[in-house]
Amino acid sequence: MNIPMRTYLVTQGDRSRGRGTGSIVRAAIEGGVDIVQMREKHTSARERYELGKELRALTREADIPFVVNDRVDIAAAVDADGVHLGDDDLPVSVARDHLGEEAIIGRSVSTPEAASEAERAGADYLGVGAVFATDTKDVNEGEAEIGTETIAEIAETVDIPIVGIGGINADNATEVVNAGAAGVAVVTTITDADDPAAATQQLRQAVENGRTTV
Amino acid sequence: MNIPMRTYLVTQGDRSRGRGTGSIVRAAIEGGVDIVQMREKHTSARERYELGKELRALTREADIPFVVNDRVDIAAAVDADGVHLGDDDLPVSVARDHLGEEAIIGRSVSTPEAASEAERAGADYLGVGAVFATDTKDVNEGEAEIGTETIAEIAETVDIPIVGIGGINADNATEVVNAGAAGVAVVTTITDADDPAAATQQLRQAVENGRTTV
Ligand code: NI
Repeated sequence: MNIPMRTYLVTQGDRSRGRGTGSIVRAAIEGGVDIVQMREKHTSARERYELGKELRALTREADIPFVVNDRVDIAAAVDADGVHLGDDDLPVSVARDHLGEEAIIGRSVSTPEAASEAERAGADYLGVGAVFATDTKDVNEGEAEIGTETIAEIAETVDIPIVGIGGINADNATEVVNAGAAGVAVVTTITDADDPAAATQQLRQAVENGRTTV
Repeated sequence: MNIPMRTYLVTQGDRSRGRGTGSIVRAAIEGGVDIVQMREKHTSARERYELGKELRALTREADIPFVVNDRVDIAAAVDADGVHLGDDDLPVSVARDHLGEEAIIGRSVSTPEAASEAERAGADYLGVGAVFATDTKDVNEGEAEIGTETIAEIAETVDIPIVGIGGINADNATEVVNAGAAGVAVVTTITDADDPAAATQQLRQAVENGRTTV
């Protein structure tokens, strides 16, 4: 499966300066984002279902993949392309059984061991972080900074693509890709930007300046 | 669909005095519980998936229905009989599409209007509350006490069975059933009891003392 993910947006409505997540996603698409994940940790399932339908329509129109964090049922209900799962979520194998072979299933990991395990379990790609220390809640608070060395280690360990996440912006994205990541995932670098479209474009340029593996 | 629900247990591990939810469910089955819902609001999806498999095995052995709160995907993954949904969860119609005609789909409501709407949407039964004021977290904090009058009103309004929830115990369960409920749903009356099996049996007796509609 060749999933485009040089620039990967993870949504977070309450980090979007009151702008709707739909408008952030529109702007990111305008700026050339490759893939969108709806996260929205602090909203109800019902709200995520409604937002998911909107984001599915926008991403379908733009012909880019759309995945849902955690909830396999919401992903199925809004006809998303797949899910992104963490340690606390359903196992990759359960999501695969539920969504089928064609679904995109991503998994968050931070060690080579967890990366190998997720690959064996059938993950299509890995989100790896937190790459850099962050106060922007891209990742869970208190999550350790793993650095680009671990990106390199994990990229060596698995055959599936990995995206770095955590504290990544246009200034350091090239470094992440040069370490072996297929791309970079961001929350606030886009959602909290003055101009989310321009921020996406700058991030994309920084990734393209690196040695992309896609 | 004839769903047995004179005594309906809603699990809550952190209101079970440190006893595992599996052991509470075993005791409730021993005491004659009719149906079990796994709620467990404060645990991760992964934990609910693991617990759900355990509760599914126990309820299957006892040949009683097992439903999962909120998460349609976890319900499907553990082969539960259905789901119980509230205002914040996926719509009944989405759960029905996902789980199929045979699934048991319950819906929480507190007004006759919401009850009618849920029935039209295809709910198989309704959880109605909070019947009595409660400090036991059977229902959401701050939820209004609706009393047995509303139970009677809703029982008049819909053709699907309803269970009362909120502050119900062996002392007042008969009154709830006499108002028109098919049964009573409880959390702590069983989970926090000295003897959960005996508590279930007493609750069951109180329901049978009333005019059951099942
Ligand atoms: Ni399904």
